[in-house]
Amino acid sequence: MSAAQERPVRVRTENGITTLTLNQPERRNSLSMAMLEGLSSALEKIARDDSSRVVVLASAGHVFCAGHDLREMRDKFDSHEFQLALFQQCSKVMQQVVNLPKPVIARVAGVATAAGCQLVASCDLAVAERGSRFATPGVNIGLFCSTPMVALSRNVSRKHAMEMLLTGEMIDADTAEHIGLVNRVVEPEALDETVYNMAATIAGKSGHTLKIGKEAFYRQLEMPLADAYDYTARVMATTMTAEDAQEGISAFLDKRDPNWQHK
Amino acid sequence: MSAAQERPVRVRTENGITTLTLNQPERRNSLSMAMLEGLSSALEKIARDDSSRVVVLASAGHVFCAGHDLREMRDKFDSHEFQLALFQQCSKVMQQVVNLPKPVIARVAGVATAAGCQLVASCDLAVAERGSRFATPGVNIGLFCSTPMVALSRNVSRKHAMEMLLTGEMIDADTAEHIGLVNRVVEPEALDETVYNMAATIAGKSGHTLKIGKEAFYRQLEMPLADAYDYTARVMATTMTAEDAQEGISAFLDKRDPNWQHK
Amino acid sequence: MSAAQERPVRVRTENGITTLTLNQPERRNSLSMAMLEGLSSALEKIARDDSSRVVVLASAGHVFCAGHDLREMRDKFDSHEFQLALFQQCSKVMQQVVNLPKPVIARVAGVATAAGCQLVASCDLAVAERGSRFATPGVNIGLFCSTPMVALSRNVSRKHAMEMLLTGEMIDADTAEHIGLVNRVVEPEALDETVYNMAATIAGKSGHTLKIGKEAFYRQLEMPLADAYDYTARVMATTMTAEDAQEGISAFLDKRDPNWQHK
Repeated sequence: MSAAQERPVRVRTENGITTLTLNQPERRNSLSMAMLEGLSSALEKIARDDSSRVVVLASAGHVFCAGHDLREMRDKFDSHEFQLALFQQCSKVMQQVVNLPKPVIARVAGVATAAGCQLVASCDLAVAERGSRFATPGVNIGLFCSTPMVALSRNVSRKHAMEMLLTGEMIDADTAEHIGLVNRVVEPEALDETVYNMAATIAGKSGHTLKIGKEAFYRQLEMPLADAYDYTARVMATTMTAEDAQEGISAFLDKRDPNWQHK
Repeated sequence: MSAAQERPVRVRTENGITTLTLNQPERRNSLSMAMLEGLSSALEKIARDDSSRVVVLASAGHVFCAGHDLREMRDKFDSHEFQLALFQQCSKVMQQVVNLPKPVIARVAGVATAAGCQLVASCDLAVAERGSRFATPGVNIGLFCSTPMVALSRNVSRKHAMEMLLTGEMIDADTAEHIGLVNRVVEPEALDETVYNMAATIAGKSGHTLKIGKEAFYRQLEMPLADAYDYTARVMATTMTAEDAQEGISAFLDKRDPNWQHK
Repeated sequence: MSAAQERPVRVRTENGITTLTLNQPERRNSLSMAMLEGLSSALEKIARDDSSRVVVLASAGHVFCAGHDLREMRDKFDSHEFQLALFQQCSKVMQQVVNLPKPVIARVAGVATAAGCQLVASCDLAVAERGSRFATPGVNIGLFCSTPMVALSRNVSRKHAMEMLLTGEMIDADTAEHIGLVNRVVEPEALDETVYNMAATIAGKSGHTLKIGKEAFYRQLEMPLADAYDYTARVMATTMTAEDAQEGISAFLDKRDPNWQHK
């Protein structure tokens, strides 16, 4: 293998779609400090990359992501400082996904456990191949999945989240779809087609509009209703003075394709 | 057509059930400023009308509601003042639905898009005929559905809301039921029967009780658990000193029909 | 019947599993002041009992719990003080379930209505036998289920909660599972096996881990995302210095069973 292939993450952008791949299959793509730093740095670059309008979060190998690297954690059992830094770095990466000004689609093939399941929950959208499985099994090793539950409990209802957290058991892809953790389950051979069709649909929109919309979505979710309306009404009125909204509305009324300024 | 029929909304109350109809089918019942003012004024009157205990929000024609009136918006592209007033008026109407002291049931026949989908999400209950479809397609025209998402994201889980908002694609009625946007999907020929049976069930309750309950529902939703219990325990204790609760409990224990003071 | 059997609740702990049984079947296990005080006192004791790691909330007879005791309420119609104390006591018990440092599984056989439905919603997990039914029918007797809706609306989506609250109608067990009020529906003859298998799975975990995890779950739910991550990252780092996490991780890596210090 070349040096480049050994990096914990791989990034490739084509036609406005960036594929960010967890690239340590031999370590079950676990979120070691190195992997988390690689992800953080990649997300920072993608945030600033104008050629990227949507991100597919993928994985190499047969495991999507097995959560934290337990060997690394054991090696530092005596360092509270390291453990805190690790969970803070992990929490930072998850929030970078949420705060990234471009939609992120999880492409789930294989097992996604603990912080790996959290990563799926943190994405805006998720498509899983049949056969994928999900768990928050920290409770089995005396380490309740407390940071993963932040993302999980904002995706699925309380009793479903609690069942995963308290039993630590695996759920299959269909169950994950049923409870709202993933948008869609497809056969393995249809996974890439489904994910990249969805990505292409989104990449065809105005990048400026996607950025404004995604940011407003997560901000208004944390507001009381009246504040949420006050805020979003201002967002929409401001958007209306932006070129892309005027172009989009004119194109729609004139029955032609829009020509986005902010691709 | 008579002048009366040309008004943007129609209101009719019978047996405690008010039907509020979006009445500009030739304009796809779009939420122009005139339509929004008509709705706002109608909701104000219904709020004060003691003969009305429950509201059915219906539509004339084959489209439930197509969202904002894009022609009107284009005519005022240069007026930030108008655009802000428009989104604020729309947000006011949606909150009037939520704050109306009577339950509101959306009777959805046809397409409900953008602010039209928001209207369905803002109602307390919704029944859709099979064949109805829903979308928040603003992203297609450079204008992310930011006010619609306030209502949508308070009805359905994050990934489902995001899929609608980011792809702009239509979902069918069964999907809308699956994700929680509507309570029930029925065949077109059963729509009125289902909606009006549900309305009649609710109209048979004490109007005073419905008012207190609906208000408490949305208020407690925005509180932390302990505050929500503190608040609702007081609401219930106060209700117990009201005539209708004492009459209702006595009637139940005496196995007779209650005679509500506040019909 | 012996004096012991006449107590409103029965408590029995075996193999780390405490079964707390509503024990007034002849009164439909209604939440009279005496029953609420019995529950409160039992929950306080269970909270301090180190031999108990998980609780099954069960019922004697054919009704799980019929809500408040309407006869008792009618006897005190003129005492606002009593009514307020009653709803506050009830709210206290529901919060004791949520705040109990051990997971609680509702074992639902029969009807669970009003505050009885609230009790199911307040548990961390719920398994219902086919044939069980659920309702919040207060609206039928002029007393909107305002405290029950606090728990209900934190379990199921708005439109589903509102349908139950406004119509007062029963839903069956499959519907309850569909909307997220219960985790699982099984045939009556499989109820105990399903509930106690789930309880045994959970009782096999570290009690210390369960306590920390359950508490963190409900606390982080009420925080904005950034605060939730800040809080839970600290919880996890602190947990990592606890014996059970180090033992659990070591046991996992060494492929042996963990030996919990905090059973």
